[in-house]
Amino acid sequence: MSELVAGIDLGGTKIQTVILRESEIVGRSRVATPQTGADAVLAAMAESVKSAMHFGNEPLDGLASIGVGSPGVIQGTTVASSPNVPGFEVGPIQLGDTLSKSLGGVPVKLDNDVRVAVLGEWRQGAGRPYKDFLGVFVGTGVGGGLVLDGELREGLGAAGEIGHTLVRDGGRRCGCGQLGHLEAYAGRRSMEETARRWKAKGRRTKLFDVMKERGRDRATSGVIAKALAKHDPVVVQLVDQAVWALGIALANAQNLLDLEAIVIGGGLGDRLGRPFVDRVAEAMNPRLHVPERPPKLLSTELGDLGGAVGAAVLGGA
Amino acid sequence: MSELVAGIDLGGTKIQTVILRESEIVGRSRVATPQTGADAVLAAMAESVKSAMHFGNEPLDGLASIGVGSPGVIQGTTVASSPNVPGFEVGPIQLGDTLSKSLGGVPVKLDNDVRVAVLGEWRQGAGRPYKDFLGVFVGTGVGGGLVLDGELREGLGAAGEIGHTLVRDGGRRCGCGQLGHLEAYAGRRSMEETARRWKAKGRRTKLFDVMKERGRDRATSGVIAKALAKHDPVVVQLVDQAVWALGIALANAQNLLDLEAIVIGGGLGDRLGRPFVDRVAEAMNPRLHVPERPPKLLSTELGDLGGAVGAAVLGGA
Repeated sequence: MSELVAGIDLGGTKIQTVILRESEIVGRSRVATPQTGADAVLAAMAESVKSAMHFGNEPLDGLASIGVGSPGVIQGTTVASSPNVPGFEVGPIQLGDTLSKSLGGVPVKLDNDVRVAVLGEWRQGAGRPYKDFLGVFVGTGVGGGLVLDGELREGLGAAGEIGHTLVRDGGRRCGCGQLGHLEAYAGRRSMEETARRWKAKGRRTKLFDVMKERGRDRATSGVIAKALAKHDPVVVQLVDQAVWALGIALANAQNLLDLEAIVIGGGLGDRLGRPFVDRVAEAMNPRLHVPERPPKLLSTELGDLGGAVGAAVLGGA
Repeated sequence: MSELVAGIDLGGTKIQTVILRESEIVGRSRVATPQTGADAVLAAMAESVKSAMHFGNEPLDGLASIGVGSPGVIQGTTVASSPNVPGFEVGPIQLGDTLSKSLGGVPVKLDNDVRVAVLGEWRQGAGRPYKDFLGVFVGTGVGGGLVLDGELREGLGAAGEIGHTLVRDGGRRCGCGQLGHLEAYAGRRSMEETARRWKAKGRRTKLFDVMKERGRDRATSGVIAKALAKHDPVVVQLVDQAVWALGIALANAQNLLDLEAIVIGGGLGDRLGRPFVDRVAEAMNPRLHVPERPPKLLSTELGDLGGAVGAAVLGGA
């Protein structure tokens, strides 16, 4: 029987874990991220692995290694800092060592969550046929990662920041403080903030009613999708702008890199799905320098399991 | 004695040839590109090699191979088409075979002129210390080429088109027909056309007087540099816009790729030199996602010999 590898996708709100035997998911678990500090987060990660090992009728046995994707700046098996994980704001957090000790010394590998998600789609998802592609994750923010000539691009550690591509000089303010970035138009957090601003100026929108109906305190991807389905004019306009901004940023990336494919995922990208991806392709294609040979635009195949599966691949699956 | 390799940089107005022994230039020649058709161009290329072999006091002997950089779409040793070389507009032109026959069967390698110029700066110029850099050639148009992880990036054959990065949606028309590209602001041809348009609308400029004084029928890089030195307000504004557009396009490329260095050359880039490169760095740096670690911004070392030296490197030097 072949070895088991755990993959953990650590996020600010949830911890998603899978157990892979070769490329098959044989166990999984999903828990809320404790909001009480780093020790609680690390303990919850270990518990999530144990829970995933008890996923089926019989407990699994023989965990060989673990891979972890974490937001923030990663150095070896340490998180230098991660503003979005409770207790990880000021590091370093000895994630690898602590997790390994909690689980009987199993070796742990760690990388950035976006890079790990690209790895997942590349090895086990929509990116399998390609040696050159860009993964774009449209979620709370907009992240990206590149596979070039069959290698996951690292640069000096910060490659793939397509969310901070300028699409309109002097445009909407981005979470990073600069103006006119892709993330300011296509990121979920910025879309919600913009809707609040427009509402305060008197524009009508059902977005916040949908939020309440669903018992949410923020405009999740599901809330945005629902308001879009209701043709809420504010949300229609925000999604139009997201499509426009993605069209520019992806065309610029394509003209520079001449990729085979672009995979669009992330919470909002996955939720809006194929119709959204097709609209982005329509916005991108007229801007290509070689329009007769556009890159394939694809949805993710792994959806929100991509990070955890990619973490398992990192771990050796 | 080690072998000699010829490198030919074929352009729409000139043919620049060098002979390299190891990395030393031991011969060179520069002739106008015949405007009478493909056969005349191919004959002039062969003559330019013979002339370069007679550069010094004694003729050189033992040409081992030839490399050529040509504008346009390249397939193997054939130019599929090249709108800027007389007679090459509709190909295919059997450049490699014809040139080889004219020079006693010496093997010929061929690639795109911009890629070859990047190769030159990488192997023998400003790019030597780096395994990750972008070469940007600001000339009649704006071309670019990428070295990533120690490999010249090809993509599917069209990588590096940074000139067609969108910097202002709906902005100035580019030579390619689209609006708001880098080349529309930083390319020499577009700068000249813009100056003519502004003059027709009543703006005062000395640009065309400088052209006449220098006996030129177009705003060459030298003409633009001279008008800039005279603080001509139209040229000052055009160069300001070129700096602004380069700042955006290079910041976007850097945020996506996390490069070690960017080398700025081309006719206009080389002519305006270090002060221009420093201004581009100032425009780019505030737009970087990791501003504390900007890429090194460099001028070319080989200047307008970069294409010919790179062609010789392609040929095996």
